Amino acid sequence: MENDIFQLQYALDTFYFLVCGALVMWMAAGFAMLEAGLVRSKNTTEILTKNVALFAISCTMYMVCGYAIMYGGDYLLSGIAGNGVEGADEPASYAPSADFFFQVVFVATAMSIVSGAVAERMKLWAFLAFAVVMTGFIYPMEGSWTWGGNPVFGLYTLSDLGFLDFAGSGIVHMAGAAAALAGVLLLGARKGKYTADGKAVAIPGANLPLATLGTFILWMGWFGFNGGSVLATASVDSANSVAVVFMNTNAAAAGGLIGALALAQVLFGKADLTMALNGALAGLVAITAGPDTPSALQATAIGAVGGLLVVGSILTLEKLKIDDPVGAISVHGVVGLFGLLVVPYTNAEAKLTGQLIGALTIFGWVFITSGIAWFVLKLLIGIRVSEEDEYNGVDLSECGMEAYPEFTSK
Amino acid sequence: MENDIFQLQYALDTFYFLVCGALVMWMAAGFAMLEAGLVRSKNTTEILTKNVALFAISCTMYMVCGYAIMYGGDYLLSGIAGNGVEGADEPASYAPSADFFFQVVFVATAMSIVSGAVAERMKLWAFLAFAVVMTGFIYPMEGSWTWGGNPVFGLYTLSDLGFLDFAGSGIVHMAGAAAALAGVLLLGARKGKYTADGKAVAIPGANLPLATLGTFILWMGWFGFNGGSVLATASVDSANSVAVVFMNTNAAAAGGLIGALALAQVLFGKADLTMALNGALAGLVAITAGPDTPSALQATAIGAVGGLLVVGSILTLEKLKIDDPVGAISVHGVVGLFGLLVVPYTNAEAKLTGQLIGALTIFGWVFITSGIAWFVLKLLIGIRVSEEDEYNGVDLSECGMEAYPEFTSK
Amino acid sequence: MENDIFQLQYALDTFYFLVCGALVMWMAAGFAMLEAGLVRSKNTTEILTKNVALFAISCTMYMVCGYAIMYGGDYLLSGIAGNGVEGADEPASYAPSADFFFQVVFVATAMSIVSGAVAERMKLWAFLAFAVVMTGFIYPMEGSWTWGGNPVFGLYTLSDLGFLDFAGSGIVHMAGAAAALAGVLLLGARKGKYTADGKAVAIPGANLPLATLGTFILWMGWFGFNGGSVLATASVDSANSVAVVFMNTNAAAAGGLIGALALAQVLFGKADLTMALNGALAGLVAITAGPDTPSALQATAIGAVGGLLVVGSILTLEKLKIDDPVGAISVHGVVGLFGLLVVPYTNAEAKLTGQLIGALTIFGWVFITSGIAWFVLKLLIGIRVSEEDEYNGVDLSECGMEAYPEFTSK
Repeated sequence: MENDIFQLQYALDTFYFLVCGALVMWMAAGFAMLEAGLVRSKNTTEILTKNVALFAISCTMYMVCGYAIMYGGDYLLSGIAGNGVEGADEPASYAPSADFFFQVVFVATAMSIVSGAVAERMKLWAFLAFAVVMTGFIYPMEGSWTWGGNPVFGLYTLSDLGFLDFAGSGIVHMAGAAAALAGVLLLGARKGKYTADGKAVAIPGANLPLATLGTFILWMGWFGFNGGSVLATASVDSANSVAVVFMNTNAAAAGGLIGALALAQVLFGKADLTMALNGALAGLVAITAGPDTPSALQATAIGAVGGLLVVGSILTLEKLKIDDPVGAISVHGVVGLFGLLVVPYTNAEAKLTGQLIGALTIFGWVFITSGIAWFVLKLLIGIRVSEEDEYNGVDLSECGMEAYPEFTSK
Repeated sequence: MENDIFQLQYALDTFYFLVCGALVMWMAAGFAMLEAGLVRSKNTTEILTKNVALFAISCTMYMVCGYAIMYGGDYLLSGIAGNGVEGADEPASYAPSADFFFQVVFVATAMSIVSGAVAERMKLWAFLAFAVVMTGFIYPMEGSWTWGGNPVFGLYTLSDLGFLDFAGSGIVHMAGAAAALAGVLLLGARKGKYTADGKAVAIPGANLPLATLGTFILWMGWFGFNGGSVLATASVDSANSVAVVFMNTNAAAAGGLIGALALAQVLFGKADLTMALNGALAGLVAITAGPDTPSALQATAIGAVGGLLVVGSILTLEKLKIDDPVGAISVHGVVGLFGLLVVPYTNAEAKLTGQLIGALTIFGWVFITSGIAWFVLKLLIGIRVSEEDEYNGVDLSECGMEAYPEFTSK
Repeated sequence: MENDIFQLQYALDTFYFLVCGALVMWMAAGFAMLEAGLVRSKNTTEILTKNVALFAISCTMYMVCGYAIMYGGDYLLSGIAGNGVEGADEPASYAPSADFFFQVVFVATAMSIVSGAVAERMKLWAFLAFAVVMTGFIYPMEGSWTWGGNPVFGLYTLSDLGFLDFAGSGIVHMAGAAAALAGVLLLGARKGKYTADGKAVAIPGANLPLATLGTFILWMGWFGFNGGSVLATASVDSANSVAVVFMNTNAAAAGGLIGALALAQVLFGKADLTMALNGALAGLVAITAGPDTPSALQATAIGAVGGLLVVGSILTLEKLKIDDPVGAISVHGVVGLFGLLVVPYTNAEAKLTGQLIGALTIFGWVFITSGIAWFVLKLLIGIRVSEEDEYNGVDLSECGMEAYPEFTSK
């Protein structure tokens, strides 16, 4: 009888992981649609290709070495290679393969963040080569210091310092943004983004329904991203936590959308849809570091601050000539940092110093190693397409086909 | 041991609510895509903005006061504010936050219905102001009389009269349509919808793949909408009910699609895609008031009648000069009423008089209060855009950006 | 207490079936978007109409007679007609309605495969008439010989011969492709697909973001397709199997995408998005016959071979003048066969001879009966639109409306 109950707990927790993992996998579609909607039509096929290919590369590299680096390989690699239960010393509380599946879609999320920021001017294969390094090494290393529990270079252990990042505002989102920032700085702005006298030119996205769809997909997938990060659901306590996390994730997205929409209306006198979408995403990123402890009202407020921040950040980065076509660095980087720093406000287990040191560690590691990787790629194969290819659109030069061959004329 | 079993039941029911709630949240994307596909390209950004913003407002208003009005606040507000279990007198059978999450996405569904009907000519901020009133007060009040169990104005209790609306054909769908109808009547038809001599002009939607995608999303999300309304799944009886509800929801959508497609072929000599899509949605609305008692064949038939009805209703409303660009009043209002009235046919617990009184109560309340709200908004800030803005498209006047800047020329 | 545990197992397995079934239903949207993205804009409304209508017809026909043919009717038909539990001799381990729901969405998947291959020149109502035969008779018959366990024409029993098709590489995917191939051969190539001297002309799809979205939807839905085919999850063993299946399904898709993208780059010098998408789908089809036994690395390799195969197959079929606008015969047929044949490599229970005989049985049955059905339809009502209608696009002739009335000019 006791064994029956254990089996049921095991089965329910496993199923919960799988459902949440499928939702996180779905976020890959969200990023693809969001980015495809926010670039120009001549660069759409390429951004789609990047998004599907980075997902495939992420899954493969994380299987080959990423998971082993992040969580210690022997036990799990055998688990992955075998049927998923052999080799465990003590009975696991859910299927190891389900855990792997849930983790593998996270690394793809981190990588998805990068593609949008470097859109419209980066070489496709240079990007995919970077994806290999990012998902096979850079992300797993910082993951091993945070969720993996390893000391950072053997020096200090983040959890001991009061660092707490529930579902990855920093570990996933800010990390992705740090890699993106390094790439964008080496890459430079798109041709035509700035006038001769340095003024930013608005380059509207080609397909706003797609961008909206992408945001809704991400919103939905985020229930799996945050909800699954409770890591168990088969007890009253864990079920309550998962439920609170779903509720707060939704509340924060709502708050972020309202905050950004209202601020954009005040600043521009228009209800700016792209700001509203980025606001919703900012709300989601903001709550991700600690969705289990706030009340729904606090979650809404945290999201709303994220929504305000993202509008300010997008305008600021544009002025600084950091050209990020989809606003990914603002949404995931700036608001990811805010998400980390706001955790101690509702959770006594997190300390502000711990959050700061953790944020610095993640950002420093990812930014520096990514910068090196981008730089080596720049030397070896180049990372930016030719001016002519950029002018004609990377769809033709990189993929050999237009995304909308019948709709646009040039 | 007994406690272990209770914990598992609690956890499974909670997880079931959360999964169903996530599916209902996904319906917001469905409405957004459906409506974006059925309006003209010049009004697409605005309808997308309305859809994302109304979802955020719905979630926030329902948290602030809607849930408290509908189900009685003290217990649940503390539940929402806290971690979701404190304050309960007896052990709940699932996490209160999961219940809140499931309920909150329902109010967004009701509100989503409105946006399509008033598309292409309503001021965005007037619409969002209405959303505040609808989701914070109008819907919660009628919800308190139905699912909440409160007597209507202290006079009569609907459940005592044999009123039964399983998942909300009336409470959600007809309510949304009633609010939409009030708005449409005050707003008037779109410029160009009728010729000088009163003939209706077809205004085709700009993007039928989007409309189809939206329908598929709604179809999928409806499994959560109806399936979650069993309110429990952790026993043989409730699991059987949930399974029957999934099966019948699917069957009714299929029936509705076939009914509408066949009737359109007969009437127009063409396989009219938009009628087929509305037919599927009509099938879903029709079964929503009682998806647990019919056989799959009965469910298919109920859906098919819904599909026939919606074609007739769309044609009739068009003749009556009630201009509803997406057919929302027909799908959710006319067929919602049919859904209520057909329940007694398969469920002896429902009485036709109860269904009629319930329908009148819901429609009367929502139509009158919505009419007042729209009228006050009309006086205060105006609800219709200027003729020039309507001609140029509300995307530019309300949102300052085109949805497809590279695809259309005018 | 024992009864409580049984109830929980029953409830969890039922909920698992329903969630997986909803994901498989979602694949219908994936096929619709994939196909709508890969055809020309003038044939988009029609392919959408086919996709929504075939889903509705599949669900209805399978309810009317398909399920009874495939699994034996008496028990289940009463189950479907009633509340889903009466009539069972022994206690079922999950709700019969959930089983029906899961099975019904499978037949729709098989039918969805056909629509893409015959796109851009087939009469809509001829196609829907074929759907009635395919989903009400052809598929259920071969299903009864495989998953149903019946001897083939009373002669031999496939399972006795070591035939094993876990989730339907052959039973669903190759079957759909066989029906499609028969239709394509009778139908002939699209006008303009081949020049006077027999060279193939590339006809690009109108909307690659849609095609990408469709692929992501299919990828996600496949977790339900393969994961649900374990048929139980409420024990440690079955939960482990489901988890392994999710992991391997994802790995194979990733492998297929990488394989196809790399090969296309080598062959064409470009990162061909449509090949990458077909590669991901090929990986999914390849693993479907046996996703439970390979390691993640083996699954990646099986998927990668599928991805290589699909590129070669698409190029070969094009040379053979078998005109398949979306590559469905290659993805589901050629790779479906490969999926069957590779099972014995990781699963000793499957025998190569059994797989071959099973493949021949399925292909022979479906190809011949489909050919007869298509031929009869050709005689009775014709299956191909007129040259003029094909030139102008089937959207106008079959559906009376354009998919993108504002975006294209002709």
